[in-house]
Amino acid sequence: MIASNAAPASRDSSPLDRIRIVLVSTSHPGNIGSAARAMLTMALSQMVLVAPRRFPDPEADALSAGATTVLERARVVATLDEALAGTVYSIGLSARPRAFAGQVMPIREAAGVALSRARQGEVALVFGGEMSGLSNDELARCSTVATIPANAGYASLNLAAAVQVAAYELFVAANGGGVWRAPRFAGATHDEIEALHAHAARTLTALRFLDPRLPRRLLPRLRRLFARAGLEREEVNILRGVLARVDEVLDGDTRR
Amino acid sequence: MIASNAAPASRDSSPLDRIRIVLVSTSHPGNIGSAARAMLTMALSQMVLVAPRRFPDPEADALSAGATTVLERARVVATLDEALAGTVYSIGLSARPRAFAGQVMPIREAAGVALSRARQGEVALVFGGEMSGLSNDELARCSTVATIPANAGYASLNLAAAVQVAAYELFVAANGGGVWRAPRFAGATHDEIEALHAHAARTLTALRFLDPRLPRRLLPRLRRLFARAGLEREEVNILRGVLARVDEVLDGDTRR
Repeated sequence: MIASNAAPASRDSSPLDRIRIVLVSTSHPGNIGSAARAMLTMALSQMVLVAPRRFPDPEADALSAGATTVLERARVVATLDEALAGTVYSIGLSARPRAFAGQVMPIREAAGVALSRARQGEVALVFGGEMSGLSNDELARCSTVATIPANAGYASLNLAAAVQVAAYELFVAANGGGVWRAPRFAGATHDEIEALHAHAARTLTALRFLDPRLPRRLLPRLRRLFARAGLEREEVNILRGVLARVDEVLDGDTRR
Repeated sequence: MIASNAAPASRDSSPLDRIRIVLVSTSHPGNIGSAARAMLTMALSQMVLVAPRRFPDPEADALSAGATTVLERARVVATLDEALAGTVYSIGLSARPRAFAGQVMPIREAAGVALSRARQGEVALVFGGEMSGLSNDELARCSTVATIPANAGYASLNLAAAVQVAAYELFVAANGGGVWRAPRFAGATHDEIEALHAHAARTLTALRFLDPRLPRRLLPRLRRLFARAGLEREEVNILRGVLARVDEVLDGDTRR
């Protein structure tokens, strides 16, 4: 396919559906597959390949690890201009300073801008080839330049790894940092916790571990520990069970 | 090596030096190499491998893309407990909900906590094997559980890609989102910009493109455009140069 044929997206679809990942002059088909996988993990599906050395390719399929829908829908074009046709905003990624770039955004900020622009139209994130990235001419065709903060002494992110980080930032910008919910556990109430402390004080005294006339810092330390932990009801029950068993032993019950 | 032999770090080294990346039961040596590369891009250097299937391995070297120092320093241990020895805090990564996990942090939040704990001592981020991640027993040995926000329908990040995202979040938490500075360009001053607008109004009038008796919205639109662009001094000079050349042509000078 030559021209952009992305259908105008309806306003209630996700802005992520209007963000295309453009890979320019990719050398290794494996990186195309890994990039497709990275995209799909972050709910991106529009891949555009500018003059890839080899595509389609079995290595791309293998490394996509099931993200074949992204590869099947990928558009192959001859020039960056064709890849950017129809976009209202484009962000070129660069790992190194460029003399002409007046403004460089960290990828987190760029992801926020991309999301905001994607509410108005199509947006592109553009990644250069494995060896030297985007040329100055290619970067100049983009609306802005972004970079991934990295070790200044070794900023050599793998192409698919860079796509993963950028896609992650887009996903977080679109969906917030929310994660799957862990099962909820009932927190212990104040009175349950106070009953535990009272029980502990009795049992520790009976054990002669705590001298009530010379309590020192033991009970406050226990309070601090359990307050920090944020006790759940079930945990209070377990601790009370332990204390109750100690009580039984102290009362002469040594059954095991 | 069996026990942790990480030297106590001095207080003025980077907290990133006290964060180890632990890979448990990694199947593919290529992923170990890619993870080493991902680590080094984000200034992490402590890798610990728990029972890797194959290591060292030429494939790990190849995919480390020069991050060989990380591989050379990598410790290989037999159990997760050995990998965590000496740590004051550990974060287990999981891509899916676990019934027992009382608290799950998104990786961004976890990175902030890890950095904060790394000011007190050694910290570990723990990643499971490629097929099924960390076991419940392994996760339970960690201080907390974190996850990378992802597409609920396809959350299958490649192992090295997950290391890359986590390492990136640690790097940003340690260094802020700052990026290499683009060369600074002098912004145009208010009076320079006003002179440009006055010049443009004169030339556009002379061109009979602008009717000063019926100006409509042309000049305000130009003002809005240039205000949004944030003009630099050099750009004002270029625009004034264009206007001056148009002025010359209007004065009868049609030299090319």
